[in-house]
Amino acid sequence: MHDALRPLEFLLGTWEGEGRGSYPTIESFRYREEARFWHIGKPFLAYSQRTWSVVDGSPMHSESGYWRPLGDGSLEVVLAHPFGAVEVDRGLIEGATIELASSSVVTTPSAKRIDGVTRKMSVAEGVLSYVFAMAAEDQPLQFHLTAHLERTA
Amino acid sequence: MHDALRPLEFLLGTWEGEGRGSYPTIESFRYREEARFWHIGKPFLAYSQRTWSVVDGSPMHSESGYWRPLGDGSLEVVLAHPFGAVEVDRGLIEGATIELASSSVVTTPSAKRIDGVTRKMSVAEGVLSYVFAMAAEDQPLQFHLTAHLERTA
Repeated sequence: MHDALRPLEFLLGTWEGEGRGSYPTIESFRYREEARFWHIGKPFLAYSQRTWSVVDGSPMHSESGYWRPLGDGSLEVVLAHPFGAVEVDRGLIEGATIELASSSVVTTPSAKRIDGVTRKMSVAEGVLSYVFAMAAEDQPLQFHLTAHLERTA
Repeated sequence: MHDALRPLEFLLGTWEGEGRGSYPTIESFRYREEARFWHIGKPFLAYSQRTWSVVDGSPMHSESGYWRPLGDGSLEVVLAHPFGAVEVDRGLIEGATIELASSSVVTTPSAKRIDGVTRKMSVAEGVLSYVFAMAAEDQPLQFHLTAHLERTA
């Protein structure tokens, strides 16, 4: 593992668990999630996740991208979303907690517009927890998703 | 497979082979590549690729994202690059040939700026070939990468 990844080592592995989502424009929902963080010897983490409905097991969201620690306690994250969006975040690593805010979210012409997101993620007692907030569809930045995942590999 | 993916079915699978790159600001190079296109039952292809030096096997580039056919012969592509960039492309599918041009490339503050890219990709006689052109570092849009890959899975 590249030395630059030490501050993000606590994320490495495969994580599985459940989450819930809500937003003013949709019905609340619950989901199963699998998230993976891995490295290939370079100074970034590769990341992908998928979610499934807890009701019928159908695939819901997925996203993939890269986490780039900058060596000064800050990091950049670049992500692609299959509904037609890309996301660039900046943030800070403090122990096993990361707080990110988007500097840019670009949506394709066929996708719903997203104006900004924040991500807070932490690992405590073997559980990865995150809260994802979003400003979209003329709604102000607010809670959208939270999940608690356990390391399975 | 979701019906919307029929126009991109020719990309599905794992592809391996060799490529070469050049640009006015760097030395020319050759690389090994593995690219994967897969689906999860939804109307997009998931995509990831990695490249390695042919000289010493060290990891070089990687990228990941999603290909979204829109049903009218056009498609959108959203990608993340670990050097700190996200890419949104639009283009056309014509038989087993795809031509894409970026509508937006956003780079992180720590990354080299990229002003635009084009991708031409085709499959003929079991070989996936692509040409990637790039405008970056004050250079006009021009050839950067080409590779020929065979389906291995």
